[in-house]
Amino acid sequence: MYRALRLLARSRSLLRAPASASAPGLSGAAVPPSWPPNAARMIPVIKAFGILKRAAAEVNQDYGLDPKIANAIMKAADEVAEGKLNDHFPLVVWQTGSGTQTNMNVNEVISNRAIEMLGGELGSKKPVHPNDHVNKSQSSNDTFPTAMHIAAAVEVHEVLLPGLQKLHDALDAKSKEFAQIIKIGRTHTQDAVPLTLGQEFSGYVQQVSYAMVRIKAAMPRIYELAAGGTAVGTGLNTRIGFAEKVAAKVAALTGLPFVTAPNKFEALAAHDALVELSGAMNTTACSLMKIANDIRFLGSGPRSGLGELILPENEPGSSIMPGKVNPTQCEAMTMVAAQVMGNHVAVTVGGSNGHFELNVFKPMMIKNVLHSARLLGDASVSFTENCVVGIQANTERINKLMNESLMLVTALNLHIGYDKAAKIAKTAHKNGSTLKETAIELGYLTAEQFDEWVKPKDMLGPK
Amino acid sequence: MYRALRLLARSRSLLRAPASASAPGLSGAAVPPSWPPNAARMIPVIKAFGILKRAAAEVNQDYGLDPKIANAIMKAADEVAEGKLNDHFPLVVWQTGSGTQTNMNVNEVISNRAIEMLGGELGSKKPVHPNDHVNKSQSSNDTFPTAMHIAAAVEVHEVLLPGLQKLHDALDAKSKEFAQIIKIGRTHTQDAVPLTLGQEFSGYVQQVSYAMVRIKAAMPRIYELAAGGTAVGTGLNTRIGFAEKVAAKVAALTGLPFVTAPNKFEALAAHDALVELSGAMNTTACSLMKIANDIRFLGSGPRSGLGELILPENEPGSSIMPGKVNPTQCEAMTMVAAQVMGNHVAVTVGGSNGHFELNVFKPMMIKNVLHSARLLGDASVSFTENCVVGIQANTERINKLMNESLMLVTALNLHIGYDKAAKIAKTAHKNGSTLKETAIELGYLTAEQFDEWVKPKDMLGPK
Amino acid sequence: MYRALRLLARSRSLLRAPASASAPGLSGAAVPPSWPPNAARMIPVIKAFGILKRAAAEVNQDYGLDPKIANAIMKAADEVAEGKLNDHFPLVVWQTGSGTQTNMNVNEVISNRAIEMLGGELGSKKPVHPNDHVNKSQSSNDTFPTAMHIAAAVEVHEVLLPGLQKLHDALDAKSKEFAQIIKIGRTHTQDAVPLTLGQEFSGYVQQVSYAMVRIKAAMPRIYELAAGGTAVGTGLNTRIGFAEKVAAKVAALTGLPFVTAPNKFEALAAHDALVELSGAMNTTACSLMKIANDIRFLGSGPRSGLGELILPENEPGSSIMPGKVNPTQCEAMTMVAAQVMGNHVAVTVGGSNGHFELNVFKPMMIKNVLHSARLLGDASVSFTENCVVGIQANTERINKLMNESLMLVTALNLHIGYDKAAKIAKTAHKNGSTLKETAIELGYLTAEQFDEWVKPKDMLGPK
Amino acid sequence: MYRALRLLARSRSLLRAPASASAPGLSGAAVPPSWPPNAARMIPVIKAFGILKRAAAEVNQDYGLDPKIANAIMKAADEVAEGKLNDHFPLVVWQTGSGTQTNMNVNEVISNRAIEMLGGELGSKKPVHPNDHVNKSQSSNDTFPTAMHIAAAVEVHEVLLPGLQKLHDALDAKSKEFAQIIKIGRTHTQDAVPLTLGQEFSGYVQQVSYAMVRIKAAMPRIYELAAGGTAVGTGLNTRIGFAEKVAAKVAALTGLPFVTAPNKFEALAAHDALVELSGAMNTTACSLMKIANDIRFLGSGPRSGLGELILPENEPGSSIMPGKVNPTQCEAMTMVAAQVMGNHVAVTVGGSNGHFELNVFKPMMIKNVLHSARLLGDASVSFTENCVVGIQANTERINKLMNESLMLVTALNLHIGYDKAAKIAKTAHKNGSTLKETAIELGYLTAEQFDEWVKPKDMLGPK
Repeated sequence: MYRALRLLARSRSLLRAPASASAPGLSGAAVPPSWPPNAARMIPVIKAFGILKRAAAEVNQDYGLDPKIANAIMKAADEVAEGKLNDHFPLVVWQTGSGTQTNMNVNEVISNRAIEMLGGELGSKKPVHPNDHVNKSQSSNDTFPTAMHIAAAVEVHEVLLPGLQKLHDALDAKSKEFAQIIKIGRTHTQDAVPLTLGQEFSGYVQQVSYAMVRIKAAMPRIYELAAGGTAVGTGLNTRIGFAEKVAAKVAALTGLPFVTAPNKFEALAAHDALVELSGAMNTTACSLMKIANDIRFLGSGPRSGLGELILPENEPGSSIMPGKVNPTQCEAMTMVAAQVMGNHVAVTVGGSNGHFELNVFKPMMIKNVLHSARLLGDASVSFTENCVVGIQANTERINKLMNESLMLVTALNLHIGYDKAAKIAKTAHKNGSTLKETAIELGYLTAEQFDEWVKPKDMLGPK
Repeated sequence: MYRALRLLARSRSLLRAPASASAPGLSGAAVPPSWPPNAARMIPVIKAFGILKRAAAEVNQDYGLDPKIANAIMKAADEVAEGKLNDHFPLVVWQTGSGTQTNMNVNEVISNRAIEMLGGELGSKKPVHPNDHVNKSQSSNDTFPTAMHIAAAVEVHEVLLPGLQKLHDALDAKSKEFAQIIKIGRTHTQDAVPLTLGQEFSGYVQQVSYAMVRIKAAMPRIYELAAGGTAVGTGLNTRIGFAEKVAAKVAALTGLPFVTAPNKFEALAAHDALVELSGAMNTTACSLMKIANDIRFLGSGPRSGLGELILPENEPGSSIMPGKVNPTQCEAMTMVAAQVMGNHVAVTVGGSNGHFELNVFKPMMIKNVLHSARLLGDASVSFTENCVVGIQANTERINKLMNESLMLVTALNLHIGYDKAAKIAKTAHKNGSTLKETAIELGYLTAEQFDEWVKPKDMLGPK
Repeated sequence: MYRALRLLARSRSLLRAPASASAPGLSGAAVPPSWPPNAARMIPVIKAFGILKRAAAEVNQDYGLDPKIANAIMKAADEVAEGKLNDHFPLVVWQTGSGTQTNMNVNEVISNRAIEMLGGELGSKKPVHPNDHVNKSQSSNDTFPTAMHIAAAVEVHEVLLPGLQKLHDALDAKSKEFAQIIKIGRTHTQDAVPLTLGQEFSGYVQQVSYAMVRIKAAMPRIYELAAGGTAVGTGLNTRIGFAEKVAAKVAALTGLPFVTAPNKFEALAAHDALVELSGAMNTTACSLMKIANDIRFLGSGPRSGLGELILPENEPGSSIMPGKVNPTQCEAMTMVAAQVMGNHVAVTVGGSNGHFELNVFKPMMIKNVLHSARLLGDASVSFTENCVVGIQANTERINKLMNESLMLVTALNLHIGYDKAAKIAKTAHKNGSTLKETAIELGYLTAEQFDEWVKPKDMLGPK
Repeated sequence: MYRALRLLARSRSLLRAPASASAPGLSGAAVPPSWPPNAARMIPVIKAFGILKRAAAEVNQDYGLDPKIANAIMKAADEVAEGKLNDHFPLVVWQTGSGTQTNMNVNEVISNRAIEMLGGELGSKKPVHPNDHVNKSQSSNDTFPTAMHIAAAVEVHEVLLPGLQKLHDALDAKSKEFAQIIKIGRTHTQDAVPLTLGQEFSGYVQQVSYAMVRIKAAMPRIYELAAGGTAVGTGLNTRIGFAEKVAAKVAALTGLPFVTAPNKFEALAAHDALVELSGAMNTTACSLMKIANDIRFLGSGPRSGLGELILPENEPGSSIMPGKVNPTQCEAMTMVAAQVMGNHVAVTVGGSNGHFELNVFKPMMIKNVLHSARLLGDASVSFTENCVVGIQANTERINKLMNESLMLVTALNLHIGYDKAAKIAKTAHKNGSTLKETAIELGYLTAEQFDEWVKPKDMLGPK
């Protein structure tokens, strides 16, 4: 038996649990040959369980649980919450759809660790019983959803939002840095009227800013905890007030505004709140994909692309092709975006398939939500540090493209009329000449007039 | 030429526009043989354009547009907003991705209708010019997104939210009506401890209630209008204040709190707000799929299903099988839910693929958003009227299942201990006998004790 | 009552049918105010029903059905197959999930039309009874899936495959036309070693070629017909041999290799074959999105983009910006691709949610499959005619970019070593000079050597 | 430095590579604190690289590479293929989108291991150079796609197809075992005419059988290898014949029919073949979700569900509710199905976003394809072993439901007419009585006649 399983009870249920659930193998063998990866082991959910079990022990003590037992549970639960006992949680996503096996895993590890602290015999269930004490007033059906919400909220606050904020701030700094650089705009991927590079980046800033607004807008439903609903939402075998007190304790432990869910039937049977949060991250993925795509295209080249941005050279280029720098950070970001869109569909399918009093796609749903949150948060940080902060404007190239642009002709409409302006543009396009040359050649205006009337910096806003 | 196109200008652009865009054929032929369907013709967007063009004319008059021309535009625009000129808008979704052709269609129809009102010659562009007057201070690039947001907001308020509210109220009434009916709960699709049918329905009520909360939470970004950004977001060729005034006029015309978008670059280049709203509808689809699935399973039978609910018999059953009633409303609802999930992916893919200053998946995105809003709203009304309000509880069946349930044994834990209770349940399961019979037979308690201790109505909440 | 409903029976079922199913409103009102659009009315499914009902009548005559009745049914069914009675089919997608109402609609319209032909009284069910004669040996549960497969196969063969073939041929012609044009390659959107424009287009040709292979690979399961399974797949109330004979008749009528499904239980309870076909179209959508994206980026400009391709100018550009040509066909194609990806998810969700002997997402599933097939087919034709065939290579621009490229330095590796080659490239990049200038300036080789060694046309294949 | 990285070169590229790519953190730190999980490290791709590099070394030897060097590469590559050097591959999915860093990781590990075998100095690049020797005639751009296809094909053949075959065989055995058990059918989740339990299971058998057909139908495009295309598909720096020979060697090493891709441009720039394979797995997911859903509903109970199947009791039930057995294997399977549907969307988004000569969503795409293949394969095995093989029919319950069914009345149509049969059914439904009682009571037939005419076993097929 794997050493790390020492704290697991030797009950039939737990010996079998890894067996029937051991993904990626789902193999049926006792312990999978390759230890399951962190992601599939849902470590943030385990940590959240530690917080919940600690909170429950405190409240149970209020309702009469022997303080010695309650305290031992609290200490053991704290170790779970801190990740100290991670190795004792071999179970993976592909178990029962309620997460029952994980709740049992947690109950047994905490009870054994508490027994160990109290000098008892591992597996004796004395003096700390996994069900009667650790799981008191609880059920897998309300604890697992509670741990899902705690884990999601923590991940959002510790990883996702800080990552987005960092990206936002870096883009905002670039937007200000580039405020005076006038460049050609592009609509339909075709040349259009000018804007500043700072204005262009301000759109990205707005997108990331709204990404945070959207994620925060989804949080009120995430802050609602199912604890207190027990088996089907009625709260059978719980005490009046338990639900509210546990939520308050969890809020105190995490510093996040958790409350008890107003309707426990919904909180067990549906996980719309996770679909909602996943939806906000799906929108964020769209935003980040747009930004990363723009940056790689604006930085394409060095000779045959748009070449308006110079991206940081993080890695040496191809061993064949010297000078080749690839926008790897943009590529990692767009891959992450695609993954988040896929995760969202998995969450959606799971969320739509609950039946009666219990949705049984819980582990799969939270795994995808946590994956998306972490990927977006981490990718935002990496993209910021390794790409955004180092972006330089290739002002020479920007000026050249801008000055060559036929779209500046728009400024002449007011002075010589649309038709003559159009004639200039079309002739210049046909001959490959500049607007100014063509305008003078056609005799519509003088060089001085052209210089006075065609000023890109006057085309950057309403009048 | 189709009669309805009378108001279209004879300009090359408009003769060609239907040609290159005429879906479902995208055929290249002048006008598609089968007139394109309403949905593909995006009629709500056309109406929204009517509102926008009217608002713009008012503001343009403030900035100096000839009142006679402005007034004629307003009247013609009102007709567009009222749907009176629908037949003049043959263009469909599968056109240019900026919706430019639709904006031009609107400009020309309004200019011609205004000319007609003023006694001018159709197609003369005098005295009302489609570009110089109707499109004044505007661009396709900011008007189409504006019309998208107006159309989405109107559809949400006129169809989606009222539909959901109606469904909510009907479910809430049922929840109260069924408040005293105690039934077996089901988790993992397996028998579990009891709850009331009213409690079960209260979960659905909560889901629909939150669906409305979620949709409303997405609206602030929908209320932001791109108008004033013109070609690339800078507002070139617009007047200072135009953006704010147009948004205020649109707000006044619709009674909805529209404001000008704080960043026009984002408003043209990304449509994250539509992805967000679509995400809220995707979550709603999950909720409604869960509810409809539950209701059809709880109503399954009449003899070989769960049979706890009696659903309204809307249609005669099969011509072969008398007495067969199918949950057709649940089926329509779940099909709608699946469609909305699919539409959401289309919106997501479109939303992630904007480039530079313009997202060019606009018509496809708004078509799917409007489709989802209408489907969910209409299906909610139909489901409410033809199913929910007529649902009856089959109390006889509910009582039978509840009294036969082995899970009631849970109540005995406190009196005879978990082990004896388990023995009763397992023996009863094995023998197909009742809990009471078995308990007495095993000599664990008396009939009187059983009746006193095993009371489902005491198992419905915390103590 | 709408005139077109004349042929509908006055039976309670049919008066109610439109009521409960009338989408987009699902309104419950007798006939929806806005006549439902073609797409939602599933016209290709109705036509397929005409083929099936004709085939069934022929086989039923073999088994003893009065030839006079059989013949009248055949004639009426032919009219349905030809689309002559389309107006009599008001039912839309959002009905019962088995399509029962549509089958009943078909039975009654055919029976009434047959009665009319035979001089009987409409609605009398004499001498042609909708159930006993038109629906003989059939059930909605096997006819609707049969009609789905016929409709899908016909649409694939009449619209989708011809559209793709046309696109394939046009791309192939361009690939050959461009065979000698050497251009810069781009990987990671960055400059890379050269290839010919013809080689680049050959990749597109391969993608479209495989798209057809993939779609054809899905057809064997589509050619399997459920007819003969009746209510649950057993074939109750059918005759031995009926299934095989109907499939053979349908094959003869359509010229497509339909056969009877080897397992009718699967054919009614699951629609994996539609999910599979939708998957093939989803892959096709990815291919077409890639191609259209490449073409619009290669054609971006005219001054500030890549500018290697000149795309046909189908519409006049912006009213503000003369010379602006937008890649509208690419935009329509990529919007179509996004829609097909979304449709695929709707089909997937529906396909995964069948229960027991019947999948009840049938109308929604076939609607999306038909939508995708038609969109992809039509868009391919439009894209070919209005874009691909008119694409020109901007050889001047292509040559310029190619000759300026730093990646040509790769050819020097064999002559002066990687390190000196790298020095040349980096120096040229830094100074903005050409490779040749730099190489000579650094003293690594002569102008003659450079011209002899750096030949792009020698870099186009293995040696 | 992590011990396992010993074989990595100390080149700047490799010290930085883990840094910029170290997911899940993408953190930028040298080596991530928590070693990245197997899945994210794409171990099957690494093993496939081992096979490819061995094959390339053999072919390079044919073209003149020093046999001593070639042999050392082959031996080191074999160790990679066997997984012996897994710890030396820290790179994860979220790196550059071409997988360049992984190819370089492989080249350096093999070169160092080969140097070690030959007694050289690690990191000296002598006598085995990572680029000049290990990567000879190759580029990341063709090797990574080649490794993707090898990995996918191996996983399909070693995990996915065997898993599905096992499930197929177990379902087929059950179908035969249950061939004589007649049960009530259910359409629309409502009671319908009977079929045998064996017939019901035969539908599942057909679904799984076709799942294998579909996956195999996608393989011909997976068997096509990009090797020989090098940087952009032209095969620059490769030898004529290299592509074909490498494919043949890989085929010999794996026993799978790999061939060289007919068009290398497509093979680098698009990964439609992976989207196609993912689509086949998506269809499989729909099939398995349907089957698992049916089985859990048919096994629902024990008292208040359908109760026709008895599922194996793998885990003890709830600690509160004795006798509770949950269909955990069905739940794991349906969660896996949802995940595969999500993965498919991620693959689709990645597949649609290739640009020019290179798709840069490669690592993300193959990660999802491999994840889906393994999940479906493993889940099929677990579901078979822990659920399907142990399923028992609850014949008592099945008989009871079947005999009570009102749908058997259908058999009387031929004897007493539809109307009287309908009267019997409706009366029985209303009174809760049996068909037989009611029929006799209404005086339509005798008990003997009923017994003779109403025989479920005569309702199982056509006549």
